[in-house]
Amino acid sequence: MNTTLLKPGTLLHGGDYNPEQWLDRPEILEEDIRCMKYAHINCVSLGIFAWAKLEPQEGVFDFSWMHEIIDRLYREGIHVILATPSGARPRWLSDRYPEVLRVDVNRHRNLFGERHNHCLTSPIYRKKVHILNKKLAEEFGSHPGVILWHISNEYGGECHCPLCQEAFRNFVRSRYADIQELNKRWCTTFWSHTYDSFDQIESPSPRGESGLHALNLEWKRFVTCQTLDFAKEEIEALREGESVLPATTNLMYYYDGLNYQKFTDTFDILSWDNYPVWHKKAEMQTALDCGMFHDIIRSIQKKPFLLMESCPSATNWQPVSKLKRPGMQRLSSLQAIAHGSDSVQYFQIRQGEGASEKFHGAVIDHYGGTEGRVINEVAETGKALEQLREIYNSTVAAPVAIIYDWENNWAMQDAAGPRNENLFAKEAVLKSYEAFRKLGLNVDLISMEQPLEGYQIVAAPMLYVMEESFSDKVRDYVKAGGAFIMTYWSDIVDGTDRCFMKGTPHHLMDVFGLRQAEIDALYEGEQNIAAPVTDTSWSFPREYTCSHLCELLKLRGATSILEYQEDFYADYPAVTEHAYEQGMAYYIAADMETEFYLDFYRQIADKLQLYGPWGKETIPEGVAVSTRENMDYTYIFVQNYNSHAISIKPLPDTDMIYGLSDNILDGYETVVWKKKR
Amino acid sequence: MNTTLLKPGTLLHGGDYNPEQWLDRPEILEEDIRCMKYAHINCVSLGIFAWAKLEPQEGVFDFSWMHEIIDRLYREGIHVILATPSGARPRWLSDRYPEVLRVDVNRHRNLFGERHNHCLTSPIYRKKVHILNKKLAEEFGSHPGVILWHISNEYGGECHCPLCQEAFRNFVRSRYADIQELNKRWCTTFWSHTYDSFDQIESPSPRGESGLHALNLEWKRFVTCQTLDFAKEEIEALREGESVLPATTNLMYYYDGLNYQKFTDTFDILSWDNYPVWHKKAEMQTALDCGMFHDIIRSIQKKPFLLMESCPSATNWQPVSKLKRPGMQRLSSLQAIAHGSDSVQYFQIRQGEGASEKFHGAVIDHYGGTEGRVINEVAETGKALEQLREIYNSTVAAPVAIIYDWENNWAMQDAAGPRNENLFAKEAVLKSYEAFRKLGLNVDLISMEQPLEGYQIVAAPMLYVMEESFSDKVRDYVKAGGAFIMTYWSDIVDGTDRCFMKGTPHHLMDVFGLRQAEIDALYEGEQNIAAPVTDTSWSFPREYTCSHLCELLKLRGATSILEYQEDFYADYPAVTEHAYEQGMAYYIAADMETEFYLDFYRQIADKLQLYGPWGKETIPEGVAVSTRENMDYTYIFVQNYNSHAISIKPLPDTDMIYGLSDNILDGYETVVWKKKR
Amino acid sequence: MNTTLLKPGTLLHGGDYNPEQWLDRPEILEEDIRCMKYAHINCVSLGIFAWAKLEPQEGVFDFSWMHEIIDRLYREGIHVILATPSGARPRWLSDRYPEVLRVDVNRHRNLFGERHNHCLTSPIYRKKVHILNKKLAEEFGSHPGVILWHISNEYGGECHCPLCQEAFRNFVRSRYADIQELNKRWCTTFWSHTYDSFDQIESPSPRGESGLHALNLEWKRFVTCQTLDFAKEEIEALREGESVLPATTNLMYYYDGLNYQKFTDTFDILSWDNYPVWHKKAEMQTALDCGMFHDIIRSIQKKPFLLMESCPSATNWQPVSKLKRPGMQRLSSLQAIAHGSDSVQYFQIRQGEGASEKFHGAVIDHYGGTEGRVINEVAETGKALEQLREIYNSTVAAPVAIIYDWENNWAMQDAAGPRNENLFAKEAVLKSYEAFRKLGLNVDLISMEQPLEGYQIVAAPMLYVMEESFSDKVRDYVKAGGAFIMTYWSDIVDGTDRCFMKGTPHHLMDVFGLRQAEIDALYEGEQNIAAPVTDTSWSFPREYTCSHLCELLKLRGATSILEYQEDFYADYPAVTEHAYEQGMAYYIAADMETEFYLDFYRQIADKLQLYGPWGKETIPEGVAVSTRENMDYTYIFVQNYNSHAISIKPLPDTDMIYGLSDNILDGYETVVWKKKR
Repeated sequence: MNTTLLKPGTLLHGGDYNPEQWLDRPEILEEDIRCMKYAHINCVSLGIFAWAKLEPQEGVFDFSWMHEIIDRLYREGIHVILATPSGARPRWLSDRYPEVLRVDVNRHRNLFGERHNHCLTSPIYRKKVHILNKKLAEEFGSHPGVILWHISNEYGGECHCPLCQEAFRNFVRSRYADIQELNKRWCTTFWSHTYDSFDQIESPSPRGESGLHALNLEWKRFVTCQTLDFAKEEIEALREGESVLPATTNLMYYYDGLNYQKFTDTFDILSWDNYPVWHKKAEMQTALDCGMFHDIIRSIQKKPFLLMESCPSATNWQPVSKLKRPGMQRLSSLQAIAHGSDSVQYFQIRQGEGASEKFHGAVIDHYGGTEGRVINEVAETGKALEQLREIYNSTVAAPVAIIYDWENNWAMQDAAGPRNENLFAKEAVLKSYEAFRKLGLNVDLISMEQPLEGYQIVAAPMLYVMEESFSDKVRDYVKAGGAFIMTYWSDIVDGTDRCFMKGTPHHLMDVFGLRQAEIDALYEGEQNIAAPVTDTSWSFPREYTCSHLCELLKLRGATSILEYQEDFYADYPAVTEHAYEQGMAYYIAADMETEFYLDFYRQIADKLQLYGPWGKETIPEGVAVSTRENMDYTYIFVQNYNSHAISIKPLPDTDMIYGLSDNILDGYETVVWKKKR
Repeated sequence: MNTTLLKPGTLLHGGDYNPEQWLDRPEILEEDIRCMKYAHINCVSLGIFAWAKLEPQEGVFDFSWMHEIIDRLYREGIHVILATPSGARPRWLSDRYPEVLRVDVNRHRNLFGERHNHCLTSPIYRKKVHILNKKLAEEFGSHPGVILWHISNEYGGECHCPLCQEAFRNFVRSRYADIQELNKRWCTTFWSHTYDSFDQIESPSPRGESGLHALNLEWKRFVTCQTLDFAKEEIEALREGESVLPATTNLMYYYDGLNYQKFTDTFDILSWDNYPVWHKKAEMQTALDCGMFHDIIRSIQKKPFLLMESCPSATNWQPVSKLKRPGMQRLSSLQAIAHGSDSVQYFQIRQGEGASEKFHGAVIDHYGGTEGRVINEVAETGKALEQLREIYNSTVAAPVAIIYDWENNWAMQDAAGPRNENLFAKEAVLKSYEAFRKLGLNVDLISMEQPLEGYQIVAAPMLYVMEESFSDKVRDYVKAGGAFIMTYWSDIVDGTDRCFMKGTPHHLMDVFGLRQAEIDALYEGEQNIAAPVTDTSWSFPREYTCSHLCELLKLRGATSILEYQEDFYADYPAVTEHAYEQGMAYYIAADMETEFYLDFYRQIADKLQLYGPWGKETIPEGVAVSTRENMDYTYIFVQNYNSHAISIKPLPDTDMIYGLSDNILDGYETVVWKKKR
Repeated sequence: MNTTLLKPGTLLHGGDYNPEQWLDRPEILEEDIRCMKYAHINCVSLGIFAWAKLEPQEGVFDFSWMHEIIDRLYREGIHVILATPSGARPRWLSDRYPEVLRVDVNRHRNLFGERHNHCLTSPIYRKKVHILNKKLAEEFGSHPGVILWHISNEYGGECHCPLCQEAFRNFVRSRYADIQELNKRWCTTFWSHTYDSFDQIESPSPRGESGLHALNLEWKRFVTCQTLDFAKEEIEALREGESVLPATTNLMYYYDGLNYQKFTDTFDILSWDNYPVWHKKAEMQTALDCGMFHDIIRSIQKKPFLLMESCPSATNWQPVSKLKRPGMQRLSSLQAIAHGSDSVQYFQIRQGEGASEKFHGAVIDHYGGTEGRVINEVAETGKALEQLREIYNSTVAAPVAIIYDWENNWAMQDAAGPRNENLFAKEAVLKSYEAFRKLGLNVDLISMEQPLEGYQIVAAPMLYVMEESFSDKVRDYVKAGGAFIMTYWSDIVDGTDRCFMKGTPHHLMDVFGLRQAEIDALYEGEQNIAAPVTDTSWSFPREYTCSHLCELLKLRGATSILEYQEDFYADYPAVTEHAYEQGMAYYIAADMETEFYLDFYRQIADKLQLYGPWGKETIPEGVAVSTRENMDYTYIFVQNYNSHAISIKPLPDTDMIYGLSDNILDGYETVVWKKKR
């Protein structure tokens, strides 16, 4: 598809809707429509688990009920995101074709049950999905109410069946010139595990090979590749069915099993399902955590995404499912919009009567009707989205980026290095993210495959894996005047987790003007102190603690900004700077506390005269500032994650397009200003 | 059987006895008899794991040694509870018929070993048990020393073999009109898991279906049903062998795997095995916990039960097996009597030489003889039972009841609702139980299938599942003047865990005059406060904390007694009352602290002028008061769970039939008074 | 072999070396040799995982590369310990002969992968190892640079395949007269698990029999026996290849899976791999823990052993891999020498590029060269070993012994006794060890099969298992004037974990003049107090706490030294003494705090006028004193585990042969004096 502009041309508001549960009770459908209109809902996702209703017996199809529902919704002004139902199979399929059931890592085939319990390699599973998808496209692809394909549901997991083993072998074969090259790059000689042939490759298993990190990494790559291959075949079937509608799939919060950064070409638009645990940690911490994942997803395609699921009330599968406090549903929904989503969708419109998610919060609860707190808060959100409709399809421009790379995460977690207990790798990313966000800057989180041009600052926390191609980008970026910050435990191995000899950060020792000599791991509770060096151009108000990992550097041109104060490496550099051609390369040798990042980035931003919409002033504690922009306007979102009110000062030359007041931001409230560009 | 009066006509004292371990050492048997007489033992359980000695080869039986032992014991005045040995099989059985070995939830067949490792569906296993049981009945059923059948031992666990799958399918088939009805009631459409036929039903498994709650619930029901069916066949074999002796089976402390409330018809008398962990928590808390299970078991048949196993010293399978402090063995034994047991039996008479319970406490330890502390404390207990012999066959009359329902527990734990971490459901029952007990009231704990008539107060904590039949009982009970207390998270689903629409507590909104709108789950450590409403007929001395779960109610006629003080639902009702025809319906919306229950129930009891034997006065801290009664007398047990002495005031018109003093109750001591009715 | 004197005749310094990873990069070998010489390395271990390079296809051998390397090393003065490569198999072996893959305890056969994943019973595996070992011997057995065979690598784990089951049955059959004897000794009647025939014996399994302790114990014995049988066959192949070099195998820190005390006859010299976690606990505690294992290994053959692996820097497989602080590498290495090692070897010489140990510390790190801290500290250690070369082949004489018996540990841990949570059994041994070491005494840790003669004091903590043969030794030892200390939970069962009747400590009640009546287990956090009895010959400065386990004794001639102060056994004896013929038997009834052992052993030593090289004075906190001796000299090692300097007073008549000063011992420093005998 060459466009992802969705037909309604406005922000979407709605959610998963599973009326196939009540086809024998038409009064429920009527009540649902009444409630949806009350709640300002304009879009629902249909058919996600409907295979058994659409094809109740092999080759026997029934689309009539879905026609009726889509027609009825359309008449009421409610659009449909139509799912391919491959996320769960009808019972007859695995009864007739047991090969479609997954085989686990111990090589045991599963029984029927649950979701995502099918082999994505299985030709018969692909064929059956193909037939149904094509028919869905033929039936509904040109319906004016249908706006988007929702491909499967939360793809995930892996299968170790013989078909997958064969596919994995072919995948590996395609990536190495010959088995000798593989042996060399995987360092199989270490434990006499040399492969004689690609035919000997098997997926990792705790009952077999689990410590060959290159194998583990290739397996993870294969799982992503095979999942995308399956998804492409799903979409092809829709195209064969003559549908030209765009396609999305819904992703999961920091899901480790699939490299979502590879999803960019397969889908026209990305979407994800956001279920934060509010009211447990400080709200702002939760907001930063979700905000970062919004930005991760947005940065994959660098365009608007969709919030495909969220909970209007409490979930039912968390250890403790706390109610959202009044206002939090709207605040959290508008956060998605602020970070680049063009929708607020819920799981689900109507609460189910039974099975495993019967107590999951929904727009329409078991009691029903429009009396309850939840549906009224949803309606308020719906009204807000209507007020903000001009924001639709506007984009997020970020002056700074953080490198966040799925494959790097995979490799680093599995590598068996200085800390197996916890590398605090996600936390390291969050520290840079939090600092940039508290400066009021939008942030992109990009993979190593994406370009660095255009960013004024780029931070690279724990880039353990580094291919030469990326290091070249970094060098070019700094040469051209960029500010690049890299941390400890970076540029250590190549893409097969093979260590670089002759010094690290391997490719970039010249750029940073240093090399790492040793890395110390600190036990939980231990810390060192990094103190500012005197007589520099820097001005830090205090010393900072560091913990978990501390590198011992040898400087080769860089100068120290902060130095360790304790242990046998007291006086060694903890943070350095190095002017490299037109740019600056900063190196952070230890896992510094968050406050350091804030003070450090503020000074770098000052040097670059880089300010967000809030300018030089400090944004009040607990308040987040974000912007979207289109050809004409910048839209400034200011959100208060405190439960108490905050005084704010309206920005000059802005108009308030959403909010209660220009001067007071109530607890959990949002104000949106627009400003001519 | 139409009678369960056991031949000896007195309280039983003894325990498990396994002399088959020493048939080649007759001097041990002689020593055992000497020690048993010293310890005032009048009854032992024989043959529990004796299959291999009774049928050493298939079809070759040897009863001679057991004849000798039973004869010898009988001559010494020691009666026998004779076990059917189905709790453990001889090796030849599974070697010859591998189908008798259990298959686990992952569908792997076990190897020989341990106990309870056999399929209760297997026809061959049933046949072999039948043959041996019948022969046992023929050999020993009319022996004057044998008084009771001990059917198997601690039935438990489950088997997922093909035979059990087939039986499960038949079980399910019998409960639904057709597969459409099953699909509807199980809500299988939710994830496209519609069954086409009963032939597709399989037991739940983590490798297949584990989240279909109705399936899980039916499986648990099936396991109970199949176990009872097996037990009935065991008993039938005894009847074929012409034995008319009553039959029992020994149950386990709060065992979740079987619904013991269904055991009432199969067995003539129930018994259980009590292994509390004394001296860890406050003794009174441990006493309440055991006391409640005594009362649960007694309430199933509402008649005397047996304490079949208990430990005279320390166990050997707890994480830390602490010695019982002097006096605790007797105190704990007499607690069983106070709560309705007609026996105190131990595991075991003589400590084994080897295998997995060789260090489990016993009446006769490895050292042997009558010198030790343990056997002398056992002898004291034996003397006490002789002093209390008139209590035999007296009953426990309880003016109050708590609804405690196994199926409700199963459903609630599995439901995936507001708290998966811990619902604190058992604790909720214990809070009501503790409050009633501290008022000196006997308590019945009954299932929803039992009648409510005759109780002055009925408490229903967390009755998540409610069928209409029970709600009708509640309505009738309140109409007729009863006081009924129900808590949060009640009347939510039907017997297939399907949610009620249009409001909850579904059947009883009229009776309680309210409906539940939302339920908030609190994280560990969080709490709200419930404060008394002013100007009511109630008088609470203070505010109370509540935690874990707090419901938000809409009142429809009820009035608030206490209200929340914090969070967005401050001022919402926390506890309500509602006059309904002649009775009162009270609703407790949150998990209140125990002290609230005490203050609340005391006031309800005052309104009803309901007092236990201790009257209106407060029972001293750490002291428990219980009664049993027969045609002529009420027997009042006062037990001191403190390690220090307590002053007491003898009750008027009573005679002390056991104890050291009417005025001072030593640490861990018991006094028993009798009073003419 | 009748000699274990290794050809170089000096302390070895080196480590594992795996150049087969870089055969295509000859410059790496050159650099390695340069670095090794810089680091004063004189010995490397070769070929540990080289099977795939030595026999790349079945029956196709390539020894040329190894010839070149050994020749080259020899020319440089570096000797070789040559490994048999049976620790890891080439892929072709299990592809062609799947029987060589292990079967786990659940009876599932593993896949290819990891190390130690082969069946040691498999005839084909044995045959393939035999062929290769013989060829290795033929090729390299007479090379002047090769000094020792390194048999396999860290033998461990177990296999439950049909071949092992058959071997296990034969093993068991050989140990019992007939199946009746086995049934009797294993007490199988307890749960009707009588065996009809040896053919029914199966290895323990959680899916079958896991609670029959005698079976578990025989299985553990079998695993040791089968492993040694395999090792013997490995060595025989070398002998068939005409090699007369001695053979060792490398053992693991407190490894529970094999009884290392049975390894004495199979190997000419023992070695082990030491990876302590320094800088977490107080350094002295870590030093005592390793020191004890050095002494355990040394005591097996009572002659010098080898430190085969240690880490020159940080490991990569601990939860947190902390760097060794400057000086700790040398301190820890010299500790091995002080305790009787004739080598300091590392894992590894050069850090690997990939696979699971790529970040494990090495002499030559990824950066390479001789600039780094680690290689320079290694070089210092190398110089130290050269200074200490006269210590080579000197022995350690210990005046005291502690009984530490693998089979006793196995039985006690599995027995299901008073504490299943934690018996604190190793801690009990450490308490005696620490006390002796703080008195400056060398300590042997011996099995019950070793003689007691020659020791002035013998301590026996928690000797749960006791065969009559050992009790006879104890009786004779005490009779002859020895001082024997035994603790609670001793002499309880025989070698099939069958309890002794008629009192414990069963064989030794007369020697100790007491019997144990009960054993109390204390919950975590609970304690009792043991106070000195007045008017004894003992002088304790204070009371001591005791915890975990407290026995209640009946004295039969013994006298109390300390008594409990609390609980119902206040005033019962806690520690007793009993003069028995010429000797003294002391009994410690409870798990006393460490300080008690120090005060107690000091007084016993005083009574015996037994002093170490430091004499009567107290050794400074954090300092360890050890000695080795040869015909002419005693060598006194004084090691400072503090990070700060300590003043010391040189011992009279000594010469300092290593160290910086006679008067000041820097942090982490060692001084070695020699003294004419």
